[in-house]
Amino acid sequence: MITSVANQKVKQVVSWHTKAKERKKDNIFLVEGLKMFEEAPEESIKEVYIEETLLAKLEKGSGIYEKLEKVGFETVSSEVFRKMSDTQTPQGILAIVERPTYKFEELLKIENPLFVILEDLQDPGNLGTIIRTGEGAGVSAVFMTKNTVDIYNPKTIRATMGSIYRVPFAIVEDVEEAIFSLHKVGVKTYAAHLAGKDYYDSFSFKEGTAFLIGNEGNGLKKSTADVASAYLKIPMEGHVESLNAAIATSLLMYEAHRQRKG
Amino acid sequence: MITSVANQKVKQVVSWHTKAKERKKDNIFLVEGLKMFEEAPEESIKEVYIEETLLAKLEKGSGIYEKLEKVGFETVSSEVFRKMSDTQTPQGILAIVERPTYKFEELLKIENPLFVILEDLQDPGNLGTIIRTGEGAGVSAVFMTKNTVDIYNPKTIRATMGSIYRVPFAIVEDVEEAIFSLHKVGVKTYAAHLAGKDYYDSFSFKEGTAFLIGNEGNGLKKSTADVASAYLKIPMEGHVESLNAAIATSLLMYEAHRQRKG
Repeated sequence: MITSVANQKVKQVVSWHTKAKERKKDNIFLVEGLKMFEEAPEESIKEVYIEETLLAKLEKGSGIYEKLEKVGFETVSSEVFRKMSDTQTPQGILAIVERPTYKFEELLKIENPLFVILEDLQDPGNLGTIIRTGEGAGVSAVFMTKNTVDIYNPKTIRATMGSIYRVPFAIVEDVEEAIFSLHKVGVKTYAAHLAGKDYYDSFSFKEGTAFLIGNEGNGLKKSTADVASAYLKIPMEGHVESLNAAIATSLLMYEAHRQRKG
Repeated sequence: MITSVANQKVKQVVSWHTKAKERKKDNIFLVEGLKMFEEAPEESIKEVYIEETLLAKLEKGSGIYEKLEKVGFETVSSEVFRKMSDTQTPQGILAIVERPTYKFEELLKIENPLFVILEDLQDPGNLGTIIRTGEGAGVSAVFMTKNTVDIYNPKTIRATMGSIYRVPFAIVEDVEEAIFSLHKVGVKTYAAHLAGKDYYDSFSFKEGTAFLIGNEGNGLKKSTADVASAYLKIPMEGHVESLNAAIATSLLMYEAHRQRKG
């Protein structure tokens, strides 16, 4: 059992939590809590740390205990776990998970896809919520620009509520190039933009569709919106100037879902 | 100009920021930033504090300067403003605003209304986002239970992006009583609940409608859902067990908007 916060492994976990570069170098991300551990693909789990008091409470036969034994784990004291955890109310279990390897070119082959492309989104909660809602709405994949907030940020991971394991995603080097690639395979791209003239529910999203969503403060770059197949907008009553990025994306994804299921 | 953080007014502002009880006792809330100051109803503004460097930058004729002169203001040093502000990157202007006085009974008289009832929502960002999106979707009012997070929480206010000034709202003492009152005036209530059998887009929301939304962790109480006119659910693909409360509420409000706009 690890009982010293000066332990090398404890320092490594803290470094992973706080430094995106370290996480990237080691090709991993961190997840916390029983739900995130339970849903993690077994073959991707590299390390598990569990607080001794939580371990004592786990019952054999619940599936969690068996998964722990299978993937291996390290018990730590409560003090050490508090140090390792990124949250104010630590949940007693933390896993180091290998990053999935999706490729933009491979995802392009999905038939009749529903994609989202995020340009420079900055809020980790928004990104995580989009991944979570995206799974609910049945998106095929989420693409994001290089300057989008790190998808492996602990806050993003938390907000995905497990969807991080299941929604394919890829970072695109050049968003305009990505849009051209989508057009080549017959996917229409829709720029969610205040300058849009047509409402989002006036388009058909039954064929290959990709929604382009801009940064929270500035919206989509004009150069990006201009290469899209069409502009669209979400109607807004009152004096509302824009919607939260995760809300706007969710409305679009679920409008596509509504059309496709019916 | 206030230059000492020990000044009584500075202490009062900090107390308002941190203590819901103090805000309630004095019947006020706090707003920060130029946008929130600009949109605040003039007659409701009780005090304004502006950082000297921001004041120096304001141009006459922009409307802001004139509004400041009209309502009166106090200049403060940067150090004092940092102390007064609730945010990590203070925007240089802070106003104390009198609370609006909406009454549930009055709001019930709105014709063909679109209402939202929030039961014990805990996340201030979710509540603020619902108010903001609610204005966009044209809701008539938002109701909330006593145990819902304080609508005057600084984080909620920020997330409303100004919609706090324009969306009517009321706190209901007893949610079941409120539902009965809505039924009496012909408003149908819909419980967003995982146990719902019918999808949200299979109902007509063109007549008086109220959506019931539960707490983030537990959803609607069964006793509340049971007195609603109907259960409804939002379809979810993959392994998603629930959507974020603000996302779910937004999907419902915008479905009503979509149907109502024709």
